[in-house]
Amino acid sequence: MSNINSRIRLVIHGGAGAIARSKITAERELAYRQALTESLAAGYAILAAGGSSIEAVIAAIAALEDLPWFNAGKGAVFNHDGRNELDASIMDGATLMAGSVAGVTAIRNPIRAAHAVMTKSKHVMLIGQGAETFAAEQGLELANPAYFFTQHRWDQLQRAIAKEQILLDHDEESSLSSSDEKFGTVGAVALDCNGNLAAGTSTGGLTNKRYGRVGDSPIIGAGTYADNRSVAVSATGMGEMFIRIAAAFNTAAQVRLRQIPADQAADNTLAEIAAINGTGGLIVVDAHGNFAMRFNTSGMYRGTIGNDGIAWTGIFAEN
Amino acid sequence: MSNINSRIRLVIHGGAGAIARSKITAERELAYRQALTESLAAGYAILAAGGSSIEAVIAAIAALEDLPWFNAGKGAVFNHDGRNELDASIMDGATLMAGSVAGVTAIRNPIRAAHAVMTKSKHVMLIGQGAETFAAEQGLELANPAYFFTQHRWDQLQRAIAKEQILLDHDEESSLSSSDEKFGTVGAVALDCNGNLAAGTSTGGLTNKRYGRVGDSPIIGAGTYADNRSVAVSATGMGEMFIRIAAAFNTAAQVRLRQIPADQAADNTLAEIAAINGTGGLIVVDAHGNFAMRFNTSGMYRGTIGNDGIAWTGIFAEN
Repeated sequence: MSNINSRIRLVIHGGAGAIARSKITAERELAYRQALTESLAAGYAILAAGGSSIEAVIAAIAALEDLPWFNAGKGAVFNHDGRNELDASIMDGATLMAGSVAGVTAIRNPIRAAHAVMTKSKHVMLIGQGAETFAAEQGLELANPAYFFTQHRWDQLQRAIAKEQILLDHDEESSLSSSDEKFGTVGAVALDCNGNLAAGTSTGGLTNKRYGRVGDSPIIGAGTYADNRSVAVSATGMGEMFIRIAAAFNTAAQVRLRQIPADQAADNTLAEIAAINGTGGLIVVDAHGNFAMRFNTSGMYRGTIGNDGIAWTGIFAEN
Repeated sequence: MSNINSRIRLVIHGGAGAIARSKITAERELAYRQALTESLAAGYAILAAGGSSIEAVIAAIAALEDLPWFNAGKGAVFNHDGRNELDASIMDGATLMAGSVAGVTAIRNPIRAAHAVMTKSKHVMLIGQGAETFAAEQGLELANPAYFFTQHRWDQLQRAIAKEQILLDHDEESSLSSSDEKFGTVGAVALDCNGNLAAGTSTGGLTNKRYGRVGDSPIIGAGTYADNRSVAVSATGMGEMFIRIAAAFNTAAQVRLRQIPADQAADNTLAEIAAINGTGGLIVVDAHGNFAMRFNTSGMYRGTIGNDGIAWTGIFAEN
């Protein structure tokens, strides 16, 4: 039993953005911290029992997908046509196996569909109706549009259409409304007791998005990457900038090729993203259990848990 | 005029695979070399006149898309449903701007659609029907299924269905038929007289593919990457493995972070791909005009042209 619970680590995020403490009520803040804690508990239960980092990542992300507070699964934003188009990806650092779905509308937990692509197909990425057919054949739970519907997201779309704007998850408050609602892409990275890393990300993308737009979340190398030789990474933010910088792989490559710590690598990646006017955040964990939660926005919903089983959560820069 | 024609370089590929000299007739070989030479000439005309690397990449790739010999544009393979689903991406090394389309069926030149995404939208990647709507709004030339139809691809699909196999572009001869036809994903990388790099890739994916499968070609960082600080890269081969290794960005990252030559970086990337049982090839050019055409298969359709305007083409390992 000596290696059970030895240096396990789970880190999660629920999106980065312009999150001002002054605009979030104590009640709302508590609800977010509880949601993050639930996700951490779901992943920790697996890691503490000797389970794999992949299973922990799925459990942590599925918990966030099932809550209406984040822009993933239930609570996802609406596209221009009034539909929820979901993207997710997952990667196993031990084998470099990976799976991804993009533009799916009827899968309750896109992260589970991404995992099914990884484990049950020869492929890495499936998109659109084809991905849904595959998920249905694999027996994954489907959901109808009513399941994904949330009134606040619908109202958000109407406001965005009225202003002809494409919203980033977290920019609504400052740019469009006085609502104190802040939401985001979700992600998780984990180290299990066998030293294996995994990463995953799930999102509804941009409010009022059109033309089948896909961001970084379902792109292996951009939104998600895991390699036992370096780190596991999940990203959130302005997806286009994260794709152009290959944010997740970029961070892993720095750790592997320059042998710098995970937090420095994340900061370097965010500096590259800032250089092309991008904002967002990254969570990272390495094979020794060192981890980082870095962002160049005013806040990022985030949390972590390790051997001691004590969940830590953060929202604003200072915590 | 001193900088015009100074160290320009264009490198193209038309796919890598199990290409045996003994199975290709002299007539067929000549046709391929002529096709590659036409593509090189189209790109060279732009570079020699002082045009941009992006324009040269588009011209070189569009020429190959328009020929029935390669698995891109006209001549693309059929998916399981008997349709042509096309993917393409392009990236500008000067600005790190990028564009990509995946799963499109009615755009004559997917590389031009990828370029339109890069220049005319806020996004990097558009998929499916949404991407087609965008392309149509941008005035790009559409094509109906009859345009993409080629008898040999149709026959290839029927054989694949009969054998319930998903074919890699170039594996048909050895595994499924005695045909001497060898085809592939196409790509180009270029350095222009202003020292700017660009890369692009276009494909029809896998014969008999299902479920909206997307390979590495439309993935920025996997199939395509360009950064003036390092190199421009286009990949071809078993797409899933190239995604898992983030092949194109990986190659660029090595040049930038380890400061090794482009050919060594390409070989290292192919070694990582081989380690997960992947095969394929990479073309690379750096900002000094150094270039590489590397593959771990028996052949890769390829060619290059520089200041002297003399087109060089290769098919087999030895040339």
